[in-house]
Amino acid sequence: MPKITALDVLDIRFPTSRELDGSDAMNPDPDYSAAYVVLRTDDGPEGHGLAFTIGRGNDVQAAAIKALAPHVVGKDVPETAKALAELYFELIGDSQIRWLGPEKGVAHMAIGAVVNAAWDLAARRAGLPVWRFLAQMSPEEIVSLVDFRYLSDALTPDDALQILRKIEHGKAERVETIARDGYPAYTTSPGWLGYSDEKLAGLARQALADGFDMIKLKVGGSLDDDVRRMKLAREVVGEEIRVAVDANQRWDVDTAIRWMRELAPYNPYWIEEPTSPDDVLAHRAIADALAPIKVATGEHVQNRVVFKQMLQAGALDVLQLDACRVAGVNENIAILLLAKKFEVPVCPHAGGVGLCELVRHLSFFDYVAVSGEVGERVIEWVDHLHEHFLDPAVVERGRYLAPTEPGFSAQLKDETLSDYVYPEGPVWTALEAEND
Amino acid sequence: MPKITALDVLDIRFPTSRELDGSDAMNPDPDYSAAYVVLRTDDGPEGHGLAFTIGRGNDVQAAAIKALAPHVVGKDVPETAKALAELYFELIGDSQIRWLGPEKGVAHMAIGAVVNAAWDLAARRAGLPVWRFLAQMSPEEIVSLVDFRYLSDALTPDDALQILRKIEHGKAERVETIARDGYPAYTTSPGWLGYSDEKLAGLARQALADGFDMIKLKVGGSLDDDVRRMKLAREVVGEEIRVAVDANQRWDVDTAIRWMRELAPYNPYWIEEPTSPDDVLAHRAIADALAPIKVATGEHVQNRVVFKQMLQAGALDVLQLDACRVAGVNENIAILLLAKKFEVPVCPHAGGVGLCELVRHLSFFDYVAVSGEVGERVIEWVDHLHEHFLDPAVVERGRYLAPTEPGFSAQLKDETLSDYVYPEGPVWTALEAEND
Repeated sequence: MPKITALDVLDIRFPTSRELDGSDAMNPDPDYSAAYVVLRTDDGPEGHGLAFTIGRGNDVQAAAIKALAPHVVGKDVPETAKALAELYFELIGDSQIRWLGPEKGVAHMAIGAVVNAAWDLAARRAGLPVWRFLAQMSPEEIVSLVDFRYLSDALTPDDALQILRKIEHGKAERVETIARDGYPAYTTSPGWLGYSDEKLAGLARQALADGFDMIKLKVGGSLDDDVRRMKLAREVVGEEIRVAVDANQRWDVDTAIRWMRELAPYNPYWIEEPTSPDDVLAHRAIADALAPIKVATGEHVQNRVVFKQMLQAGALDVLQLDACRVAGVNENIAILLLAKKFEVPVCPHAGGVGLCELVRHLSFFDYVAVSGEVGERVIEWVDHLHEHFLDPAVVERGRYLAPTEPGFSAQLKDETLSDYVYPEGPVWTALEAEND
Repeated sequence: MPKITALDVLDIRFPTSRELDGSDAMNPDPDYSAAYVVLRTDDGPEGHGLAFTIGRGNDVQAAAIKALAPHVVGKDVPETAKALAELYFELIGDSQIRWLGPEKGVAHMAIGAVVNAAWDLAARRAGLPVWRFLAQMSPEEIVSLVDFRYLSDALTPDDALQILRKIEHGKAERVETIARDGYPAYTTSPGWLGYSDEKLAGLARQALADGFDMIKLKVGGSLDDDVRRMKLAREVVGEEIRVAVDANQRWDVDTAIRWMRELAPYNPYWIEEPTSPDDVLAHRAIADALAPIKVATGEHVQNRVVFKQMLQAGALDVLQLDACRVAGVNENIAILLLAKKFEVPVCPHAGGVGLCELVRHLSFFDYVAVSGEVGERVIEWVDHLHEHFLDPAVVERGRYLAPTEPGFSAQLKDETLSDYVYPEGPVWTALEAEND
């Protein structure tokens, strides 16, 4: 049996703050970054994974990943659902590491990076993209991957089995359909807060031309600006196109409600992250006040327990899971099952570094084996940094194409790893020299 | 004006897992540890702070503290509420670091360690223990220390001012009362899960003899064991002494309710951490089902937003803030104000490394300037590791004595720092040699 021989971690940062790409009301100057992990083996492919951060602290995230090496190095290369379940439960079961969360923040994202790297490795060995690798597992195998602790008041293993078995029948057909048709995308590219009105209008027009039927704008800086930008976007795209808005946690409950009532005349589709991602009750209050405007959140929801409560409370109309915020594929399967149980559509968060690449696998799998439908589901698309990936996400005519390469698509090119490694890579030493 | 010249961090670990001190249903073998920070200055005292962890990952916690150095080094030594507010808002306002939480886990505890070290520094310069340093601030100054973001649906700055002004009048008298009488304590020492029945009974008897009127047992390993241990404890201490139990997050909702109904005949005072500390709705369901047994949690509650919801939902009968889990004194003042607003007693979590030393300052301040009463409030006492501190917590006849030394009492002795530093300290190299 081949073994995992090393867990290597790299601190990779892109100087995106220079362009205001990714700027929003809470994050004015992000340097999109990845705490990047490689599981090396003594035979066959490597496994690649990452945690996404926005700059400072990426070294702390990298240290947290490194701290997990003893759980992985020397182990057999995982090939089966059983092995992937065992690895996941070992990682979340380290009681000393668990104290650092529990199940949240830096320590939890570190587990996510390693778990995802293990899935990459297993899928590569199977010669399948992760979504197809998952799709060929049985309902029993899928259920075995999930930690149901703290979920049983909303979702039991039996509930999960029923969900999965119910649509087992049409799976093969759905694999063909989604591989052929792809998965709907929406674009956030027009809407960054640092962009001028002209740039916003131009990119919104471009989005229409590119075949998108939904765009998203960042809001929450200034109400006057937001009203003007929302009005402008609506004028450019017309009434048929969905325009979502995203406040990136900027507001308290009352402010969220007041602010969104000013934008309501322009028919926003959803308000994303109106307030703290920890605040189930606030999301519920905002959703009640603003219906039929939908409330969406998830990119900062720390784990399945908070998603569960959001669903139990009726606080969420749209669930935005993130491939790298929680403990990897295994916890995201729990979240997909919860969403299905509560019949709330999953519209994943993407963008950042590699999030588009990774999360599409989860949506394709969801369609094939969990929810069985697309409906209102749509994956975020941000056209940044894909050129650094060996198996980049591709969106055509407003749809994500199906990944076809074996693995989880997280692998960065070798030249990217050497150019952008922080602080010693040539991109950063050159910037440092400029600043001196 | 004196300046902060350096932020030094040490990885300090105690090999407590050898004795099963601190063993519970989720944490069978903790090595109590501190990611320890020293703010060095060019004139006058240093500031000491720490984050408490239970072993592996303490290096990650230390790295997270180190990452905050640029916000602190080179700054003026803080002396006033204004300076301490500015430092806190700067630390929680770093948007790149915030992404790692937000406001939770490793990154948030790191802010807590640095904020607490800054309070230590300021109080030493003022020549006062932190609780007296706080007690002499005005209501306006106290309110200026708090981040009300995400709180305004439950607590506004005006609410906070009203709470503080209402009891401003008797403050000087209460300082004298509490300095003379001390603050009630309960003891967890009899109840660790790894202890034999004989050890439990002996330590429970000792607790009575030492003047405690409340003890706590760990539960959640085996129901039969818990019933036997609870019965034994009740027999030893009689009906008048409160016996709380602590499940350390072991259960789901149904299990918590079933399990506690088996213990109910022995009149448990509270059930602590019955389930995930993230699960507001589960705590509410458990509290509803188990009343009049109280539900308590807090040592792992990540921030003021989750405490707020626990209080809004009526999910908590007892609020167990922790000196080092959230963003230091400033966020704990927000939590004390929330608890007062909802009239829920604060019974702090302590034990670990230095938690007793630090948290007593918060309870003494709460009595003097926030809640104005003791009532059912009681601070946890665990008699471990105090010998390593220069200004150790002291409990006599079941009461915490008032701290009298200037500062926040977090400073470890120099010989402890050199003996227990991990992995190079002599305590650890000797253990390493034994294992070889």
